[in-house]
Amino acid sequence: MSGNREIHLASRPQGWPTAENFRLVSTEVPTPGPGQLVVRNRFISVDPYMRGRMNDVKSYVPPYALDAPLDGAAVGEVLASEAEGFAPGDTVLHGLGWREYALLDAKAARKVDPDLAPVSAYLGVLGMTGLTAYAGLLDVAAMRPGETVFVSGAAGAVGSMVGQIAKLRGAGRVIGSAGSPAKVERLRALGFDAAFDYHDGPVYQQLKAAAPDGIDVYFDNVGGEHLEAAIGAMNLHGRAAICGMIAQYNATEPPAAPRNLALLIGKRLTLRGFLVGDHNHLREQFVRETAGWLRDGKLSYDETVVDGIEHAPEAFLGMLRGENLGKMLVRV
Amino acid sequence: MSGNREIHLASRPQGWPTAENFRLVSTEVPTPGPGQLVVRNRFISVDPYMRGRMNDVKSYVPPYALDAPLDGAAVGEVLASEAEGFAPGDTVLHGLGWREYALLDAKAARKVDPDLAPVSAYLGVLGMTGLTAYAGLLDVAAMRPGETVFVSGAAGAVGSMVGQIAKLRGAGRVIGSAGSPAKVERLRALGFDAAFDYHDGPVYQQLKAAAPDGIDVYFDNVGGEHLEAAIGAMNLHGRAAICGMIAQYNATEPPAAPRNLALLIGKRLTLRGFLVGDHNHLREQFVRETAGWLRDGKLSYDETVVDGIEHAPEAFLGMLRGENLGKMLVRV
Repeated sequence: MSGNREIHLASRPQGWPTAENFRLVSTEVPTPGPGQLVVRNRFISVDPYMRGRMNDVKSYVPPYALDAPLDGAAVGEVLASEAEGFAPGDTVLHGLGWREYALLDAKAARKVDPDLAPVSAYLGVLGMTGLTAYAGLLDVAAMRPGETVFVSGAAGAVGSMVGQIAKLRGAGRVIGSAGSPAKVERLRALGFDAAFDYHDGPVYQQLKAAAPDGIDVYFDNVGGEHLEAAIGAMNLHGRAAICGMIAQYNATEPPAAPRNLALLIGKRLTLRGFLVGDHNHLREQFVRETAGWLRDGKLSYDETVVDGIEHAPEAFLGMLRGENLGKMLVRV
Repeated sequence: MSGNREIHLASRPQGWPTAENFRLVSTEVPTPGPGQLVVRNRFISVDPYMRGRMNDVKSYVPPYALDAPLDGAAVGEVLASEAEGFAPGDTVLHGLGWREYALLDAKAARKVDPDLAPVSAYLGVLGMTGLTAYAGLLDVAAMRPGETVFVSGAAGAVGSMVGQIAKLRGAGRVIGSAGSPAKVERLRALGFDAAFDYHDGPVYQQLKAAAPDGIDVYFDNVGGEHLEAAIGAMNLHGRAAICGMIAQYNATEPPAAPRNLALLIGKRLTLRGFLVGDHNHLREQFVRETAGWLRDGKLSYDETVVDGIEHAPEAFLGMLRGENLGKMLVRV
């Protein structure tokens, strides 16, 4: 056995992160104490929210510490267990990614069924990503059948689920924006009624062309110009679920802000920010419904996989630049 | 009888309106047809939303026509009636203000009780103004006892009600902003726990000093810097009822926009625009509760009264400039 390798935060990024902000560190493979497990990670998730945790500011989760391993969702097999209910070979989902071997309290691990779906799915379509899409669309934005839905960052892990779930739940029309012609093509293949590349022109004009009768729901992964365009295109009583604002995570200047917020009044619009952690009451319903869609072949999901813990920083940086189609994962 | 006088829109304002945008016109006192009333108006309401109707843009109410009388809430006595259920001398509330005599269909008039409160109160504390405050605070923002509430434009007709209703409904702390030392003093007399003049420094700093533990509810009459400050000061799960954005109604440039909307996500904030017309289901409860507070001397309201229909444009312009304390009215 060749030891453990993990990624530390070497310095806090100013604006866009670079490879220099990360450090690959070799350590010993840990040994579990009472009530603990050691897990050999197989897939590690890299997600937009991690960028915020690299800043030294108070937020909904504490910032990452310098010169310590990063963390985040991961899935792997139990290598050694000193905890009741867990045996070597069990597949578990947990929060200590960014490393090859994780030492964790058994209560911080959740067993998942590797026969129901590929284990990587528990980081995406059947995991936090999928629940984010499901809860944001159906609970936060309260989408109703027949409505028109717009999602930005639609080829990403969350966005591609939002669009498909909207169609499966009876949306009248689903529109997605993405950052390349290949992604736009993929959205059409996933069943989006319309899709556009935001590089091709002002978002508002493209959105109005795609949704001449306006939109009822906006699922925001991007912020900035996209949010302003969505507010402009919204119908009466429209709702926006604000999930992410990736356009500004690396901004060093104050970001562009929607200048048309006065429309909230006359159109009676609601903008609501959310975190998936507040919606765990939906998890059971979400897993049941989503597993059914997967089984019936009604839901597709994309993964972009980077191999090797040593390439996790590149995977993260590539995800921020939008190089992924669907869920960005590191296989270790 | 000396004829009728009314105010017409002579031209559409560009930016701040001026007296030249209005015209005083003399006409005949009308005669009612079948099912109609003629009302001698006594008080006419001038409100911020009217500025929007002076632009030639589609909104939640149609724009005012050029060279025709403006309209808006008014209260007066029936002079002549050709409608069942209405007799000369009845006091009625209706929507044809900006004139001395109004000809209207009886179904567009609502009888009010002049013995319950001064008739002007039906344009303010017991009318649309009061219901706007009540519905926005309790329904749209869903204020709960113990919470901290911030209201901008707090010395205005709506704002002063919001603050007092918040206290009466058990808010833990109520903070108001206004535009002059006299208004700030008035807010303290009305029972606000803290009040500040937004000219005295950045809104965010003043708000944080007044609410060191943050705010839970923001009632927005102003927009712009106030909204950004409120978002910055909000606690987890905070809610903003967006009622007005008077700071930008006369703007000819795109208005300042909150640059901190990404906080909506981590703090799970909700911004919701509303119009009082969507909340008529609360009217009965509102009148009952508010009339009780008035009777018990628990609710105060201010009126700034300008005399003479010929001065209605000045009253409107003064209201936009914030020269009123409480409800701005024209007595005719």
